Amino acid sequence: MSKPSIPQGTRDLSPEVVRKRQFLLQTLRSIFETCGFQPIETPAMENLSTLMGKYGDEGDRLIFKILNNGLQEPSKQEKTRAALEQVLLGKNDTNLTERALRYDLTIPFARYVVMHQNEIQFPFRRYQMQPVWRADRPQKGRYREFWQCDCDIVGSNSLINEAELLAIYREAFAKLAIPDIVVRLNSRKILTGIAQYCGAEEKLVDITTAIDKLDKIGHAGVQKELSERGLSDEQIGDISELIGLSSLDAMEQAFEKKQISTGMAGIGELRNTLNYHEQLQQVSWTNSKVEIDFTLARGLSYYTGVIVEVICANDRVQMGSIGGGGRYDDLTGLFGLKNLSGVGVSFGIDRIYDVMEQLQLFPETLNVGTQVIVINNGGTNEIYALSLLNHLRVQGISSEIYTDNAKFDKQMKYAFNRGIPYVVIAEDEEQHTGTIRVKQFGGDGQERMTIDALVARLK
Amino acid sequence: MSKPSIPQGTRDLSPEVVRKRQFLLQTLRSIFETCGFQPIETPAMENLSTLMGKYGDEGDRLIFKILNNGLQEPSKQEKTRAALEQVLLGKNDTNLTERALRYDLTIPFARYVVMHQNEIQFPFRRYQMQPVWRADRPQKGRYREFWQCDCDIVGSNSLINEAELLAIYREAFAKLAIPDIVVRLNSRKILTGIAQYCGAEEKLVDITTAIDKLDKIGHAGVQKELSERGLSDEQIGDISELIGLSSLDAMEQAFEKKQISTGMAGIGELRNTLNYHEQLQQVSWTNSKVEIDFTLARGLSYYTGVIVEVICANDRVQMGSIGGGGRYDDLTGLFGLKNLSGVGVSFGIDRIYDVMEQLQLFPETLNVGTQVIVINNGGTNEIYALSLLNHLRVQGISSEIYTDNAKFDKQMKYAFNRGIPYVVIAEDEEQHTGTIRVKQFGGDGQERMTIDALVARLK
Repeated sequence: MSKPSIPQGTRDLSPEVVRKRQFLLQTLRSIFETCGFQPIETPAMENLSTLMGKYGDEGDRLIFKILNNGLQEPSKQEKTRAALEQVLLGKNDTNLTERALRYDLTIPFARYVVMHQNEIQFPFRRYQMQPVWRADRPQKGRYREFWQCDCDIVGSNSLINEAELLAIYREAFAKLAIPDIVVRLNSRKILTGIAQYCGAEEKLVDITTAIDKLDKIGHAGVQKELSERGLSDEQIGDISELIGLSSLDAMEQAFEKKQISTGMAGIGELRNTLNYHEQLQQVSWTNSKVEIDFTLARGLSYYTGVIVEVICANDRVQMGSIGGGGRYDDLTGLFGLKNLSGVGVSFGIDRIYDVMEQLQLFPETLNVGTQVIVINNGGTNEIYALSLLNHLRVQGISSEIYTDNAKFDKQMKYAFNRGIPYVVIAEDEEQHTGTIRVKQFGGDGQERMTIDALVARLK
Repeated sequence: MSKPSIPQGTRDLSPEVVRKRQFLLQTLRSIFETCGFQPIETPAMENLSTLMGKYGDEGDRLIFKILNNGLQEPSKQEKTRAALEQVLLGKNDTNLTERALRYDLTIPFARYVVMHQNEIQFPFRRYQMQPVWRADRPQKGRYREFWQCDCDIVGSNSLINEAELLAIYREAFAKLAIPDIVVRLNSRKILTGIAQYCGAEEKLVDITTAIDKLDKIGHAGVQKELSERGLSDEQIGDISELIGLSSLDAMEQAFEKKQISTGMAGIGELRNTLNYHEQLQQVSWTNSKVEIDFTLARGLSYYTGVIVEVICANDRVQMGSIGGGGRYDDLTGLFGLKNLSGVGVSFGIDRIYDVMEQLQLFPETLNVGTQVIVINNGGTNEIYALSLLNHLRVQGISSEIYTDNAKFDKQMKYAFNRGIPYVVIAEDEEQHTGTIRVKQFGGDGQERMTIDALVARLK
């Protein structure tokens, strides 16, 4: 028999990891609920037609497709063979595969809104925390199964929504106590304005794609890429100058000079967003700041207004963005529901987990499951031990018994290795006197008391 | 554009459903943690070789297989075509598919234990709550994506484990307040004893398979099936008589008469389990009972000792078992780790959900997310409204603002349809006096107060 294994890029989560992830997800869930967001869940499998063509060519290639069942039926075989030939040409054919695994939470959300539009009260504030799957090349910190956590409002144009989402980011990272959080803010309209400013509006996608790589390839790299994408030296000079500006006022002056109305609108939206956001400030937000950053581009093409990205700028952390989002004006249009504007942000659960692990930010108490173990001494002591166990559990104290009557040392070793802090020992004398002996790991010797006294101590 | 849809047998979960499911899962999680069980999670995708051959021929057909990525690469195409021919013959070929979706939680757990045996402290008490996927024909109450919730102890032969699992069932159904719970108990050793009693030990699988159908086809149906499976009238008479017995004493007398040692061992194990379980009783368990039921067989072939099944015997509920489990002596042997005995139980999350929905057992409060909505009156009132919103959220009160400055009636309609109980209105007069007007749906008129007074009322 070969040694069992799991697919490349996937992980088993140990109890310690599951508890930490639960803490992370629960912290976010609680903030979303306080802010009036509602949870939804969508199926792991979507129709292939729902997903294909929504994530670009590269995305299409990374979607995990599910083989149809019942292919061995003789009546289907001819069609199946023909379907395979299509698949080998890079096309889809529902005779071989018609379902696929969820690739992100955004497209399934858009699909959900369109399908359930008659049940939904708009504006619809929803959050969703589920795994997604991508056939990416596995590498450190990048998995083929990972969790996304999204929070969106659709059906409202108000910039209050943008302000609230910034507040949710800051509240979340305050609650998680992650230091040096920078929420970077920009607007697609400003990027469009920059393209118009240098007379290259038709090259907007080239410009944003190049700027988006700034963190990776630096200013010289961006300039080289812009040149390769056909922009003139003068245009590249303008772009470099504008994205280097450090204030809304400076950018506004530039746009005013050339009467770039889209850019001016972007400036106005960012100002309003910041004004609204000011009202939602909380004193606990000492670990984060919001910064206007004209170099922020966000790769995804569906954004149309304010865009946002979160980084942890702590020296000890080498990590890209741990969250991002923005406004999109027509996402549900993909599925036939037009003119519904939305804005949303995403939390990179796996990256946030890694940052918290690296900075040791998870509460110590999360690792402790069982508080008390009752030693199994066999015979009639066993029955007494079970009654003690029951007493602890009725009081809500996480406790277990060593179920086998093994050697004392073996039981103690188990308790130690599991990190269980309290050991209850009850032999004949304890049973006859209705008492227990308690040993605390790291403490001195054993102490005789009643089970009620132990309960009182632990509560 | 075609109307969007989701694959047959899958579901979108609305906010109301997600909240109810969270309540259900959280109730179980809390009990598992109190009893010292630890959470693990395994990937949705397993290697196909891990799953195939573990669930019988029918199971193999129902596994969802994932198409390999990158099939369009020219160098792979020949092998892919050859692989398809194998798949069309009902065989597997890793050149076309090498991964599949999790079919249950038991096999991945066995695989986990073997892979992580050096990190695990045995006995290992784990729980796991995750979705599984099966290509079953969809029908009412049966889905292609559904959740399982398992709780197992491996590495201990003690019957205290069986007793604890019975206690977990009863505690869970007490906490969920499901009425008329019957925990049916039997032992595979008693079923073996019955087969030996009538001289048909080699037909044990036939006998258990037939008895397993008793609920569906009745006594006459079981007798017919036993006859078709080659048992004589005399043997069928013996079996019918024995499974009709109503006490351990009566069965013990029968086994004693013919010196059936395996059957006697089964009787002894059930008695010990019940004795241990007696010590773990809790006064809140008024809704459940444990019953010995010799007609309980459990289809799965890997059980070797005590077996258990839970039903809700309430007249208003038409539902099969809502939970089941038992002892298995060699599950990890499938992956090369021998002699590790385990025992576990499973909660049928979707069925339990349906029962609770039918009997209206979910707390009313689960449906209420947002407690307070602040009306958006535009202009400078908007800024005041945001400060009120912030005040509520700092106090942990789930609240939202209507983000657009829409007509008052439209905002009230939204609040009503969402079921938000309190509406805060703040126009010029309130802004100048630092007050609010509060309307409670179902109450009389509006009340002027401070935001602090509202907070105090809601806390």
